[in-house]
Amino acid sequence: MGTNSSTVNTLLASIADVGRDSRRGGYSRPVFSTPELTLREWFQQEAQRRGLGVETDRNGILWAWWGEPERGALVTGSHLDSVPGGGAFDGPLGVASALAAVDVLRERGITRNRSLAITVFPEEEGSRFGLACLGSRLLTGDIDADKARNLRDADGTTFADAARANGLDPDRLGRDENALARIGDFVELHVEQGRGLGENGPSVAVGGSVLGHGRWRISVSGQGNHAGTTAMADRADPLVAAAQIILAVQQAAAAIDGARATVGRISPIPGGTNVIASRVDLWLDARHPDDAAALALVETIHGKAQKIAAFEGCTVSLTPESWTGSVSFDPALGRSLELALPGAPVLATGAGHDAGILAGHVPSGMLFVRNPTGISHSPEEHVEAEDADAGAEALADVLEALL
Amino acid sequence: MGTNSSTVNTLLASIADVGRDSRRGGYSRPVFSTPELTLREWFQQEAQRRGLGVETDRNGILWAWWGEPERGALVTGSHLDSVPGGGAFDGPLGVASALAAVDVLRERGITRNRSLAITVFPEEEGSRFGLACLGSRLLTGDIDADKARNLRDADGTTFADAARANGLDPDRLGRDENALARIGDFVELHVEQGRGLGENGPSVAVGGSVLGHGRWRISVSGQGNHAGTTAMADRADPLVAAAQIILAVQQAAAAIDGARATVGRISPIPGGTNVIASRVDLWLDARHPDDAAALALVETIHGKAQKIAAFEGCTVSLTPESWTGSVSFDPALGRSLELALPGAPVLATGAGHDAGILAGHVPSGMLFVRNPTGISHSPEEHVEAEDADAGAEALADVLEALL
Repeated sequence: MGTNSSTVNTLLASIADVGRDSRRGGYSRPVFSTPELTLREWFQQEAQRRGLGVETDRNGILWAWWGEPERGALVTGSHLDSVPGGGAFDGPLGVASALAAVDVLRERGITRNRSLAITVFPEEEGSRFGLACLGSRLLTGDIDADKARNLRDADGTTFADAARANGLDPDRLGRDENALARIGDFVELHVEQGRGLGENGPSVAVGGSVLGHGRWRISVSGQGNHAGTTAMADRADPLVAAAQIILAVQQAAAAIDGARATVGRISPIPGGTNVIASRVDLWLDARHPDDAAALALVETIHGKAQKIAAFEGCTVSLTPESWTGSVSFDPALGRSLELALPGAPVLATGAGHDAGILAGHVPSGMLFVRNPTGISHSPEEHVEAEDADAGAEALADVLEALL
Repeated sequence: MGTNSSTVNTLLASIADVGRDSRRGGYSRPVFSTPELTLREWFQQEAQRRGLGVETDRNGILWAWWGEPERGALVTGSHLDSVPGGGAFDGPLGVASALAAVDVLRERGITRNRSLAITVFPEEEGSRFGLACLGSRLLTGDIDADKARNLRDADGTTFADAARANGLDPDRLGRDENALARIGDFVELHVEQGRGLGENGPSVAVGGSVLGHGRWRISVSGQGNHAGTTAMADRADPLVAAAQIILAVQQAAAAIDGARATVGRISPIPGGTNVIASRVDLWLDARHPDDAAALALVETIHGKAQKIAAFEGCTVSLTPESWTGSVSFDPALGRSLELALPGAPVLATGAGHDAGILAGHVPSGMLFVRNPTGISHSPEEHVEAEDADAGAEALADVLEALL
């Protein structure tokens, strides 16, 4: 292991205090927040320190170039935003490993046959505007630019306004042919988010596929009323219906092999302690390796929700917020990764990634670094320092083979 | 009906635009917010216009005096704060009716044997600092001043800091013997919050008793994790446990005659769509005419919650936030109210009121004005203009009899 490979741990240590969330634990770094902007600034400084020229494209994606910007370059990178109260590695590990890999490759004195770019994608988690992988979806045109401009955060700010406030021209958001053409191959290194590499398994795996996954908003409407003066029999309480829907989600997913369905966000309106809610919004995250099975699961949940709501004297609506079909990464690129990392297992993932969005347009692949707890999107997400080093080294091996 | 009695509708119309909540509907006027401060200013101007001298006591209660401040005065009033997305009448109807009743009594040319004060109590709803009737609890010493100072709103601001920012001295919060001694009798007029006066019933009822009621915070802790990568069988999802607790609350209350139990507020942490929550806080509002039955209901719910949490691999805690035993209003005052309003029904209420807190210390009573829908704590709360007039007239009759 080269001395420079420990750079990845030094880089992560240098941002360990940015965006800590004292209430939730872990980190909250939503896109365009002070912490996320601090990390973007940090990335630009680390890139410039390495002599990499940094540019921001019209969708807010950062590109740090080793060599001149050109078509068909080798591109690696990840994201710096986080879920609320997320871990230290989901996103930053891939960015820090990319910077560290450049150091390793230079130390090795390799010959480049093409340019290398490190990218940072905005709003990968969708934790502010509700749509995961927003940056890569804009780049590829997977989301209509108008729809993206009109996405709103919890305060009602549109993505267009947030983008403008951060130096982007909202009118120029959307599919970027020139930027896409610059990606000859894309490799994203990411912390593993399940227990796929075990408690004592190998440090690095090659990404096999991404489960089909989507988000739906479920709104249950009932009759808002006073909690003290309204007899139990006179109620049409949408939170009582929502509770049954949460259980229906859990039961429907548990009954289908390989399915995952989650409600992690719920918001009663008005949300007072002494008030029967008039409406409850909850969000469904559903995934399955087979796209049709994932969509059938959501239909099952919708049907159950309608019956539950009717029984409680409420009404329910289900609105799709995003859907990404299951993704198989590029087979030829995958073989190159496996050749460069002999013995590394191939691992499917239930998480969405920018690499999964790009895979529909350019050859893309992924590396996963071992997470001994299997816990992610939580302060307890963990990567051992030696695994982070091994990950950066593996990324360097892969990039060297492809450069 | 005197011409001046329609003053109450004019007064309500003059504040109809203050604190409208475009997201929830209705009004959001939490204590010390811009809308609530606007209403306090409006009250002071209306009092001064009537030649009433206004003072703010050390707990932030407004007093408008007809006659000199004195011990044993007749006091009437209510509150101007609201629940999130509440109706137009809960609170302001009592304040506006008191102002209108002064006009009626002057028009009648009555002789006063003592002074009359109109009071406005802060934080009756507990919608900002979580404890209902905070102003009257401070006045009577029903809440320890230190505990009140340390109450926090959703942003983490303490009540002490909020009080200081609004011109109060936090060190002087707490039981106020001098102010209490000034209340010879207290009468609060309030919109009825159930269907006690029916769709075509009489306009006004006399308050009989207030149900025992309290608030408890339930915290369920589980294992935060990634919604996509964590198999259903590997989860300890506190929102799945919380959903079962919500249903247990509903079922436990429905099984006991006269009981009411509600969850209207729930907050998953971190609260991301693609994140299994690590903790869920939910709030229980429980009430029963028999105090022991109310507390037994909460114990039943606590026991069920523990079993549910254990089954889901989670833990649960239940923390009391407030408790007010059932209240019978002063019998002698009650008889005076019934004599002044022949034929008015006597109505118990499931809602807490400042009059219920004061009843433990000074003779107190209430009047309720008909709410045809029975809906309250909601934009749909309603009072017909003619019932509001009849309420102000009835309050004037009662005050005249007692002055």
